[in-house]
This record gives sequence, C-alpha cells and structure tokens, in this order.
Amino acid sequence: MTLDAVLDRINADLDASLDRLLNFLRIPSISTDPDYLSETRRAAEWLRDELAGLGCEAQIHDTPGHPMVTATTGGEGRPILFYGHYDVQPVDPLELWTRDPFDPAIEDADGTRVIRGRGASDDKGQLMTFVEACRAWKSVHGSLPGNITFLFEGEEESGSPSLVPFLEANRDWLSKDLALICDTGLFAKGRPGIVTQLRGLLGEEVVIKAASKDLHSGSFGGLAANPIRVLSRILASLHDENGRVTVPGFYDGVPDLTDTMRAQWDSLGFDASAFLSGVGLAMPAGERDRTALEQLWSRPTAEINGIRGGYAGKGFKTVLPAEAAAKISFRLVGDQDPHAIRESFRAMVREMLPGDCKVEFHGHGAAPASRMDISNPAFEAARTALGQEWPEEAAYIGAGGSIPIAGYFKSILNMDSMLIGFGRDDDQIHSPNEKYDVESFHRGTRSWARILSEIA
Amino acid sequence: MTLDAVLDRINADLDASLDRLLNFLRIPSISTDPDYLSETRRAAEWLRDELAGLGCEAQIHDTPGHPMVTATTGGEGRPILFYGHYDVQPVDPLELWTRDPFDPAIEDADGTRVIRGRGASDDKGQLMTFVEACRAWKSVHGSLPGNITFLFEGEEESGSPSLVPFLEANRDWLSKDLALICDTGLFAKGRPGIVTQLRGLLGEEVVIKAASKDLHSGSFGGLAANPIRVLSRILASLHDENGRVTVPGFYDGVPDLTDTMRAQWDSLGFDASAFLSGVGLAMPAGERDRTALEQLWSRPTAEINGIRGGYAGKGFKTVLPAEAAAKISFRLVGDQDPHAIRESFRAMVREMLPGDCKVEFHGHGAAPASRMDISNPAFEAARTALGQEWPEEAAYIGAGGSIPIAGYFKSILNMDSMLIGFGRDDDQIHSPNEKYDVESFHRGTRSWARILSEIA
Repeated sequence: MTLDAVLDRINADLDASLDRLLNFLRIPSISTDPDYLSETRRAAEWLRDELAGLGCEAQIHDTPGHPMVTATTGGEGRPILFYGHYDVQPVDPLELWTRDPFDPAIEDADGTRVIRGRGASDDKGQLMTFVEACRAWKSVHGSLPGNITFLFEGEEESGSPSLVPFLEANRDWLSKDLALICDTGLFAKGRPGIVTQLRGLLGEEVVIKAASKDLHSGSFGGLAANPIRVLSRILASLHDENGRVTVPGFYDGVPDLTDTMRAQWDSLGFDASAFLSGVGLAMPAGERDRTALEQLWSRPTAEINGIRGGYAGKGFKTVLPAEAAAKISFRLVGDQDPHAIRESFRAMVREMLPGDCKVEFHGHGAAPASRMDISNPAFEAARTALGQEWPEEAAYIGAGGSIPIAGYFKSILNMDSMLIGFGRDDDQIHSPNEKYDVESFHRGTRSWARILSEIA
Repeated sequence: MTLDAVLDRINADLDASLDRLLNFLRIPSISTDPDYLSETRRAAEWLRDELAGLGCEAQIHDTPGHPMVTATTGGEGRPILFYGHYDVQPVDPLELWTRDPFDPAIEDADGTRVIRGRGASDDKGQLMTFVEACRAWKSVHGSLPGNITFLFEGEEESGSPSLVPFLEANRDWLSKDLALICDTGLFAKGRPGIVTQLRGLLGEEVVIKAASKDLHSGSFGGLAANPIRVLSRILASLHDENGRVTVPGFYDGVPDLTDTMRAQWDSLGFDASAFLSGVGLAMPAGERDRTALEQLWSRPTAEINGIRGGYAGKGFKTVLPAEAAAKISFRLVGDQDPHAIRESFRAMVREMLPGDCKVEFHGHGAAPASRMDISNPAFEAARTALGQEWPEEAAYIGAGGSIPIAGYFKSILNMDSMLIGFGRDDDQIHSPNEKYDVESFHRGTRSWARILSEIA
C-alpha cells in the first residue's frame, strides 16, 4: 500500500525534515516590527525555494506589506488550498528565553523531545508538517499529491492588512473546494482536534494625550491632567463586576451555546484547574456565570495586551507624562460585528475623556468569528484519518484564538476551511521559549499524508 | 564698595563661568540608572576639583550609593551650609530632544539666551551660581566668603538613599546656623521667591503578577487573570470623583491653609490658565474645591509616573502578560506621615487584589513635607538683597516639588533652610530640552554675592 510507503518515508526522513525546519526557524521573520522587514522577506524567499525544489510552480507576490508566497502542484484531483504563515511573533522579553529564539535546536524537555525557537509551533513548524508530507508523497509517487495550491502569508501576527486585498484580487484561481489550515492545536496530548468554531479579533490601540510635553510632577502634579490616570479609568471601566464587557452593544450577535454543543463540550472532560495550573494560575477570571470552555471558546472578551506611559525603567522619575497608550484586543464570536464594536468602543472612550485630554485610535485588524460546516464529508474523512494516526480519536472543538483567514476564505472565496493542527497548550506560542513537540511534528506530518490520501 | 567689585567681577567673568558650567553639563550623571554609575562619580570628582581649585578643603565621601562631595572655606563668620545636587534626571524620550542632552550649548530661544542640556536648570546650573559667586568673591577679596561648608549629593533624582545615614554620621560638623539650598525657581520672570513650604514625596512601585509567563490571549484570553486589567482597576480607584485621594488616612495631618497665607497667595495674582497654557493645557485637573495654587503648593497628591505591561511596541501582539507595573508618587504636606501612608496604600492594594494575582512593592523614598521658620532674620535680609538684584521684589512662596533635604536638615541637623533658586517654569526640568536662562545664571550668581554680603 502506497500510504504505508509514504509513512515509512516520513519516518526515515525525520532528521532531515527537522534540519530543514531549523533552517527556516533561523530566519527572524517578525512581521510586526519594521526592523525585520528584510528578514521577513527572506523567510518568504526560503519557502518559495523549498516549494520550487519540490517541483511546484512557486512565486512571491509583493504587497504593500509583507509578500505572499503561492505554489501549485499542478496535479489532478480535488482542488485544495493549503494555508500557513511564515511570520512570527516578537520575542520580548528576551531575557526570559533559555536560548537565542532564532538559534533553534532540538532539546530534551523533561523527557520530551522538543523543537525550541520562535515560530517552532506558530506557525513554521506546523506549516512544515504539510510541506514534509508532500515531500514524502513525491518521493514515493514521483509526483506531488493531487491538485494543491499553497498560500503562505507573512502578516498573520500583525493583523494581515494585505490579505483581503490579495484574496479579492486573486479570487478566481484561489477559490478551491476546500481549504486546509494548519495553525491550531491538539485538543489534548495524543488527541487531535478539528476546529469548528473560531473567535474573531478586533485590535485597537488607544493613545491618550494631555500636556504638550512631559512635565515634572513636582511643578505640575495635582494641577495638570495625567494621561496614565485617564487611561487607567478607561481600562478599568471595560468590564463590570461580573466580568462582562461594558462596551455598548458588545453582546449583539453573541449566540447562546446550543444544547448539542454544550453536551459535546461537557463530554470532553476539560479540566480547567489543570489547564490553568500549567501556567501558575488556579481560577477562571472571566465571566462569572460561564464555564471555563465557554470563556475560552464561545464567549467574547476584551483584553488589554499592552500598556505604556511615563517612566517605567529602572529607578524612579517624577514625571507627568504627555501621553499614555494601551493596546486592547476583543475576541469576537457568532455574528458580532467588529466594525460596529470598534465604533462603539471609540465612542465610549471619547465619552470618558476629561477636558484637556485628546485621544488617538489606531485599528489593528477587524475579523469576525467563524463557524465551520461539518456536514462537508471531508470533515469525517479527516477525523477518521487522524484517529488512525493518534492514540485517541479526533474531537470537534472550538478555539479561543482567532484565525481570521477562515472567515475571509468563506466570505471572499466562498470556500470552507478545515482547521487541523498539532500544537500543544504548553507550546508557549507568543511567549518566551516557544517549542513544538517532535512528536507533534512527526505525527503531524504523517497525519497530513493520511488525510491527503483520503481527500485529495 | 567691595560688593560692587564682586558684582563687576561676576559680569566680566560670565563667559568663563558659562564655559565651566558647560563642562559640568557634559558629564551624564544620571543617578537612577546603574549604567551611569561611573559617570555620576565623574561629576562628583569634577565638583571636588573645582572646589579644591578655589582653595577649599574638598573631598569625596563614598556611600553605598553615589558619593557625597563636601568642601569648607575655613573662614570666619556665621557658619553656613550650602547644598546642591550634581546628579540629573534620565533623558528619555531622547527623540524629542533638539540636541544631544549631554552636548550642551548656549542657544537663542525666541530672543532669550538659554543654556540647553540635561541638568542646566536641575541642578547643575543652579548650584554653579553659588560656586561662581564664591569664585568672584575670592578674586576680589583674596579669600572665600565667611565660613561656608558645601554639601553636594548625587542621589537627589533617585530618592537620596544615602543622605540620611550620611547626615547622621556627620551630624557634628555639618550642623550650621543656616542652610542655603539652590534647587527651586523664580516665582515669575524677574521676580524671585524664597520657598517657605515644600511638599514631601513618597514613591511606590507596584508590580502585579498573575500567570507564570506571558500567555497567548487566544489560548487563554477570557479565562486567565490579566495583570494590566487588575493594575488599571487599582490605579483608577486612587482618586474619587472629586479628585481626592482614596488611600485610607491619607489626609491625616493635612493642615488647612492659614488665612494669612491664603491672602498672600491670592495677592500673587497667579494665572493658572497662563501657567497651564504654556504646556498645552487649559484646566486644573486636581481637587475640585481647591484653588490652583493650593493644588500645586499646599495639597497632597497621588500621581502615576509610569506604567508598563505586555507588548507596547510597534504593531500588535495578542499577549496576556505575566505582570504589569506602575510607579506612583505621593506629594505630601503638613504632618502627613510617609510611612503610615505607604502602609495604608499597600494594604489598600492588597485588599483589591483578585485571586490568582500577587503583588510586589518597591519603595522609592519617603520624605515628609517641610515648612520654614521665616522669623529667622536671614530671611528678610535675603529678601532685601534679592530685591536689589531683580526687577521685582522677592515673594515668600510654596513649592510643589519635593526637596526632602530641607526636612532632613531640620530633623537630623536641627538647622533651618532657606531655599532660593532661579529656575523658571518653562525650564523643562525632567523633560526633553531642559534649559536654564543665561539671565537666571547671571543674576543668580549676582544674587548670591549680595546675599552672602548680607548674611555671611
């Protein structure tokens, strides 16, 4: 059976596959930081060269931001689009890393072999599971599997500003029967998941300005407006005492969890205490009247992701700063309208602004939530294939993270998405010491071979 | 008359005096930043050498922090202590400076000659007015004036941790009849002031910690505690809707303004709108039922001087940070007890802390407020001398800034202080583009010659 030959090939080639991934991880493609512009492009070029080396028609498409990489296998079969992203998160606080984030290595972590480095799990390691499955397939079959188009973007970690225009401009040849997206996690160790609902994401940066320059708090303190104080009041008012978001109209379009889904989630036996204790916490801190899985998967949130103002370095400086700023992200569900929420949020902030203060807003992405149609038979086929690879059967799950691409694929390309990934909760994505289990990489590659064998 | 000869000498020597000051300003003695440890010491050595060059017994005293510089003229007359500080504030945000803060120069600013650079006004330029007055005195008289002891510290901008132990250890020979302190400002352009009350200062840094590491807000958002949100709630609760500080017991020991002082302050014709409009503001933002001068001089405050948490750089990062921190300073008046307020503030913060969060506190200085005894005849003598130098007569004023040294001189050395300085409200101390008017420097130097002639 040729699937077995492909799986054997993947096993035999594992070390070489890991070496290729390490090369990819060495490129610091931090998309949100303009200082890494050329490195981010270098990651795109590396991917293009890999795909061309596999015999694809591969090319780079320039955009106003970071480039898109596309490639086509050109074979027969069901047209499928595979999506991943080659950009990574910033690495600060750098001092908490146990190694240079861009000098990756295979390490032993309490008996588990892991690939350590920025992007190992999000998303370079994940996208390479698919590329390596294709490589093994070709080496056994002499050609790449089916009729696959690859689409890799370099702005996923910075709001994907070029994605919608690119999809709109290339609608005709990018619309396929189904999209495969590898940017999510296992439900639990040994148990894969297929994501059927994803939260959307709305990012806002708020800059409060008062005096025309930084002031001495001795000369002006008590008399002049303090923008940190104003900002704190605004941020403190974002939630009520029950943890609900106070932005007017915020809950418009938030669906109740269906009884079916609630029953299925209850059956997953999710252990919130264990989940939180892994990161040093003990109690759910969200809406008081919701279960932990609801708080994570099906309820919208408002989170403050960053704040700055005045002197926060070593020592002390009695300054009254001229401005203070915060970055806030809203996770959205159901039919919440990101644009309406943005306007309502901004109006609420303006309303709270005292005299002498001004506000500037900077939007960072506005993607609605997505729900997948699991009546498409590819879902059950993939679930079966995954069950053959992993110790436990695959579950249909929600995901707290936002992968706006699934929404865009639906709205712009009229294409369903199947989200399958092999990350683990302790991968520390977006944090210091990001890692990806070698098992995730290895079984992930084998999983794609099995899935392609079923659906391509 | 020899005073005239000294004043003439000061006039003739102005350019050379300015050159010496520029040399002093070139030393980046940022005491709060450990990276500038050796530069801060270099400033101390520079001062010691200047004073030794004038014929003083000058020496450096090591402390656990930055050194003290002392010098004595060794002459006859009333024993007087002169105090200043050779350390300066940090310079960030550096990009707002129009020149390198440690490459000072004399500039023309809208027709006014100014000395531009970090420390020009706070406090190197000010302390040098006294040194240059002594130099001119010596060159005319052949000896330094009277029986003066100089005391210069290098930790004024970082909470003066070594000052109290140093004063206690050297109580005997530092206790004089009167201290002169040059670290304050003119009341208005052309009108000097003698400060008779100073606010105290209590500094606190609050670090809120939640998860054991930074988390992805997609994976954990809505479920895990967010320390920025917790910190915002704490900071937002520091003031009530009338601008009063809510720390329990905060107003214990705050005196009402006496009718006499209120009448004198009312007569000063302070224009709050003009004062605020100089920095782009329009309305007093402090306690609702207090005048602007009360808010600045006689009322206690709580100000947030800095805040940090999560990702606040370019772009966006959907992180749930492990910690967030703020620096808060309280300006104190009357008999407010800094230690009692520190404990009450910390208890209040602990009280507000939700489960899963921890707090760390770091204290930065705790100095009570000071009030001077103006029945000492030196005050009227100095006021007369100042009136002869400046276009307008000198006023007894309050000061919003904290110069804890005056309190320590009283409590440890049982010595009254007279605070006279020549800074202006637009000197941008603690801000980018700090300057000191050449007129302040020149008339300031002449003022000290006049005052020494009266009281030394």
